[in-house]
Amino acid sequence: MTQHSIDTNESRLERGKRALAEIDGQAGQNVIAALADIAPDFATYVFEFPFGDIYTRAGLGLREREIATIAALAALGNATPQLKVHIEAGLNVGLDEKEVVEILIQMAVYAGFPAALNGLFAAKEVFQARKSAA
Amino acid sequence: MTQHSIDTNESRLERGKRALAEIDGQAGQNVIAALADIAPDFATYVFEFPFGDIYTRAGLGLREREIATIAALAALGNATPQLKVHIEAGLNVGLDEKEVVEILIQMAVYAGFPAALNGLFAAKEVFQARKSAA
Amino acid sequence: MTQHSIDTNESRLERGKRALAEIDGQAGQNVIAALADIAPDFATYVFEFPFGDIYTRAGLGLREREIATIAALAALGNATPQLKVHIEAGLNVGLDEKEVVEILIQMAVYAGFPAALNGLFAAKEVFQARKSAA
Amino acid sequence: MTQHSIDTNESRLERGKRALAEIDGQAGQNVIAALADIAPDFATYVFEFPFGDIYTRAGLGLREREIATIAALAALGNATPQLKVHIEAGLNVGLDEKEVVEILIQMAVYAGFPAALNGLFAAKEVFQARKSAA
Amino acid sequence: MTQHSIDTNESRLERGKRALAEIDGQAGQNVIAALADIAPDFATYVFEFPFGDIYTRAGLGLREREIATIAALAALGNATPQLKVHIEAGLNVGLDEKEVVEILIQMAVYAGFPAALNGLFAAKEVFQARKSAA
Amino acid sequence: MTQHSIDTNESRLERGKRALAEIDGQAGQNVIAALADIAPDFATYVFEFPFGDIYTRAGLGLREREIATIAALAALGNATPQLKVHIEAGLNVGLDEKEVVEILIQMAVYAGFPAALNGLFAAKEVFQARKSAA
Repeated sequence: MTQHSIDTNESRLERGKRALAEIDGQAGQNVIAALADIAPDFATYVFEFPFGDIYTRAGLGLREREIATIAALAALGNATPQLKVHIEAGLNVGLDEKEVVEILIQMAVYAGFPAALNGLFAAKEVFQARKSAA
Repeated sequence: MTQHSIDTNESRLERGKRALAEIDGQAGQNVIAALADIAPDFATYVFEFPFGDIYTRAGLGLREREIATIAALAALGNATPQLKVHIEAGLNVGLDEKEVVEILIQMAVYAGFPAALNGLFAAKEVFQARKSAA
Repeated sequence: MTQHSIDTNESRLERGKRALAEIDGQAGQNVIAALADIAPDFATYVFEFPFGDIYTRAGLGLREREIATIAALAALGNATPQLKVHIEAGLNVGLDEKEVVEILIQMAVYAGFPAALNGLFAAKEVFQARKSAA
Repeated sequence: MTQHSIDTNESRLERGKRALAEIDGQAGQNVIAALADIAPDFATYVFEFPFGDIYTRAGLGLREREIATIAALAALGNATPQLKVHIEAGLNVGLDEKEVVEILIQMAVYAGFPAALNGLFAAKEVFQARKSAA
Repeated sequence: MTQHSIDTNESRLERGKRALAEIDGQAGQNVIAALADIAPDFATYVFEFPFGDIYTRAGLGLREREIATIAALAALGNATPQLKVHIEAGLNVGLDEKEVVEILIQMAVYAGFPAALNGLFAAKEVFQARKSAA
Repeated sequence: MTQHSIDTNESRLERGKRALAEIDGQAGQNVIAALADIAPDFATYVFEFPFGDIYTRAGLGLREREIATIAALAALGNATPQLKVHIEAGLNVGLDEKEVVEILIQMAVYAGFPAALNGLFAAKEVFQARKSAA
């Protein structure tokens, strides 16, 4: 996917499905699957709004978008599963492990040392799982 | 300042003062000045830890660091003065206004529409103040 | 607007504009207007997603939806402008002032006494403004 | 329990015990039991203030009160055990599963998609446990 | 007030009024007064639960209780009016200005530098108002 | 360690290591060890800033500092592992179990009953682990 070639005949849903697959990979698919029997409409919204509308906007690259998402989720500190998905996503769209670690260390300044620590331990799990899978 | 030429003879305090001046400009100086009569030691820590230790680390550029900071502060939503300082800082280190707006719009996904709205209104004030000052 | 007669030929944008006007009234229009010169696309998203997609869903009445929104915004405590808009909105869709006060008092249990107090003071301002305007 | 027939000779503690049993059922009793050896006084406060004072107030029905509580806890995102208790409680006092899902979906607008997702997954566990127990 | 001589014939309301007057002084009275026309019952709860039940408990001194409250409110960062009331209260029950500053500086570690900065600026206003009033 | 005899020839790192060992004991060492393969620089910052700079400052005793930390972490509610470490730390520097319980009960007022409950359950685990280890 390039951000600058949005096919205007493509629906938000189709565009979002394509973007989610590219950015979040299998982790994203698992979230969608888990929604099937409780709130399938919400799965549609996840495709359409964050991925069909937002991540596919021009004006900011996917690597930059994942920096913003990782920082926000680590700072909020109450959405560890989503933080892990987006650490994975960041690595998928061009961040390296060192850069992810730098983002998380920096959160000590803005959200406190516990937020940074918990973010780093989430990253450690993601990095290890990727090594095991490789 | 380039991030890759840290003078190891320079103290954390000196390095932090230099980094704060480059990144936050006058807005950062104002924060430091406001601390003088209540907690001058904390002004020293602001120079030393966020700026002397963190922003001057290699491994992630200043533009990327400000993306992370703007995202985190907009998501937390309880530090508007600091968000404005870092929107200004982001513009100082290479983000353009459009990119700042994209980061803030994206926060609707992770922290809700009110967080994004309040971030956008903070950005509007910063952009207008810069135009008035220009 | 009734929630059960969604015109499927109506776009999300049109449906959202209609819902926002009904629910949030002038306060909602002011938010949209304030976005015009900083992030007009975000104004479109505000129409489309919260109002075109969510508030117009069947399955929960608008009065119940505003109970949920007032509670959430008071508990989060970092979005006072939006809390005021939704206290106004709650009154527009069938809550009375006493019910709004009950929701806010209850937030003392889940988000602490300061959150409840600040919510009640926001409500006080909304109630007074409505009396002045009447 | 009807909210409008408060027996003024009944103590806050007795009234709270009765309300907690009706609203939260076994899940509430488990919380109280778990407090016995660490902070029995706090168990008394839980009976007295949230249940003896607040939930038994006139002015807002229990169904509406649970909408507010579910919304607040899902938005705050840092109290999953209590969110589950109150999803259960909501079902006990008249909400159906579809309405609970609607409240949680709506939190995507005010607290972000991760808060909504984590709320939905908590609801899924509660719904499944009730089916297993039936 | 000593914490160890609770008069058991005194009602929670009376005890809370006495404790609020001693701890929060005029600032507390102002909060209560502001509630009169919007939620007088909530004013009663403020007297009864935080002040009648909690602050008058044995087991922890008032000076220690205010350390905990100042820390919590500065860390949460979304209740500046209440933080100011409790900085004032802390000074009323035995903290000196230097100790208040230390508590707020320490919050940089647990809630980030912006939370500490905003807490320090709140303290600066309280300290200056007391000097003006002296 | 006494807070008033800071050896100025001692580096921040050495001072922080000594303070962390005294305050957090084994629990602190475990955190540092867990950082070794993901972000060893962050382990250094943990020694230097919170422990080398802040906890060793004069002006507030360690017992008081741990009251502030326990209160803040319980109120934020999104850093349970760190809350447990600091409940342990509080007991190490002079708080007794009853005082820890009082701090956590008080958080019901400022951050809601769920925050207090979750803090109390964290304390229960720490108290039990210490008994098992004794």
